[in-house]
Amino acid sequence: MTTVTSHTVEYPADGLTMVGHLALPAGTGRRPAVLVGPEGPGLNDFQRRRADALAELGYVVLAFDINGGRWFTDPQEMLAHVMPLLADPDRMRSIGHAALDVLRAQPRTDPDRIAAVGYGTGGAIALELGRDGVDLRAIATVNATTTGRPGEAARIRCPVWAGVGSEDPIMPPAQREAFTAEMQAAGVDWRLVVYGGAVHAFHHPSVEGAVLPGVGHHPLHAQRAWRDVVDLLAECLPLTK
Amino acid sequence: MTTVTSHTVEYPADGLTMVGHLALPAGTGRRPAVLVGPEGPGLNDFQRRRADALAELGYVVLAFDINGGRWFTDPQEMLAHVMPLLADPDRMRSIGHAALDVLRAQPRTDPDRIAAVGYGTGGAIALELGRDGVDLRAIATVNATTTGRPGEAARIRCPVWAGVGSEDPIMPPAQREAFTAEMQAAGVDWRLVVYGGAVHAFHHPSVEGAVLPGVGHHPLHAQRAWRDVVDLLAECLPLTK
Repeated sequence: MTTVTSHTVEYPADGLTMVGHLALPAGTGRRPAVLVGPEGPGLNDFQRRRADALAELGYVVLAFDINGGRWFTDPQEMLAHVMPLLADPDRMRSIGHAALDVLRAQPRTDPDRIAAVGYGTGGAIALELGRDGVDLRAIATVNATTTGRPGEAARIRCPVWAGVGSEDPIMPPAQREAFTAEMQAAGVDWRLVVYGGAVHAFHHPSVEGAVLPGVGHHPLHAQRAWRDVVDLLAECLPLTK
Repeated sequence: MTTVTSHTVEYPADGLTMVGHLALPAGTGRRPAVLVGPEGPGLNDFQRRRADALAELGYVVLAFDINGGRWFTDPQEMLAHVMPLLADPDRMRSIGHAALDVLRAQPRTDPDRIAAVGYGTGGAIALELGRDGVDLRAIATVNATTTGRPGEAARIRCPVWAGVGSEDPIMPPAQREAFTAEMQAAGVDWRLVVYGGAVHAFHHPSVEGAVLPGVGHHPLHAQRAWRDVVDLLAECLPLTK
């Protein structure tokens, strides 16, 4: 039986005070570490529990924040915050680097073995860390087949795994093709999983209130995408006991 | 420690005497069962060992034959045999049904829990069994995003998983799209994994002698595709002890 401990960490980024969730595995030694990036609305308990679940497996995990502790319930307010961010690789990278610094500063973190997993906006940030040349062991993105500035993908040094819903109108086929063409041209070790029938944010349990069109939960594929991410980590961040 | 026993089984199909490889898991009880379909050249030791590996996990497995015991070393001879077969769903089904009958007749097989896994031509046959309405628990195809006769995919009752190399000239993007469109229109629970940079038959260790253009081994993705197939079986054919 393992015991995960977690706590809130505050740190500055993007002109905001970010409120992340740090989860530490049982034991005392250094362990491989994982950044978990949240969806556009922000960090919520769903991704905090994901962080805890990865810590149960033995990873040091930071579920990072992109919105200064807020979780946007209003889709329009969320888009007003997130769309400019997604259009600005340098801002995305600054948010990613701030989170990475927090994770690396943890004494339990093995700074040479870090992976980045992100969902939606958090996935775009994970990819930008790769395009910035950060030494990651793996990048996983769900619902984020986002492209970068020309040529920069060649700086990605690790396997990239991307999962997307076939019916996702926010990441449509043309966007997926542009992403895979970028990865292939850059010589990246990449994979794309297309989950049949799923729409945007299929991995996330349904939330109350207004949601964007084209967004919806697909419990079966959500479970598979989680399994796929865990498999990627097992491949690229093996947990040597 | 488990002990797998295996033996050769001969049975008639497609006007030939097929020479399959049956692998039985340790124990005596009924177990879920898997058909393993080989590539166009035929059944060889690679797929026989795959069958044994699945039997180690606890499945009853028949690696079936499509070429009457032959393994074509000459690509042109192989194509002359395989291309007419791939153009004839009824012939593919008859080969698949004959194999299924052999597997179902095994006392160790739980006839209500059978999956079909196939590579290239064997994958096309697995899909045709689904389109024929066979009660399978899962269909996995590697390098075989083949489409069927209009409307028949609606008879597929189980999850379909397909893996393909991004640079496969024999299963190019348009073919992949036609396949996923067919699955989606039919309401099938489907997934497609695109393995970046891989070409046709990427799962198979390189063979001596002449090979077709666009064919080549990708050891890393080969390992991942195998993991993905095992995960699919774990999901759809759980091994209750």
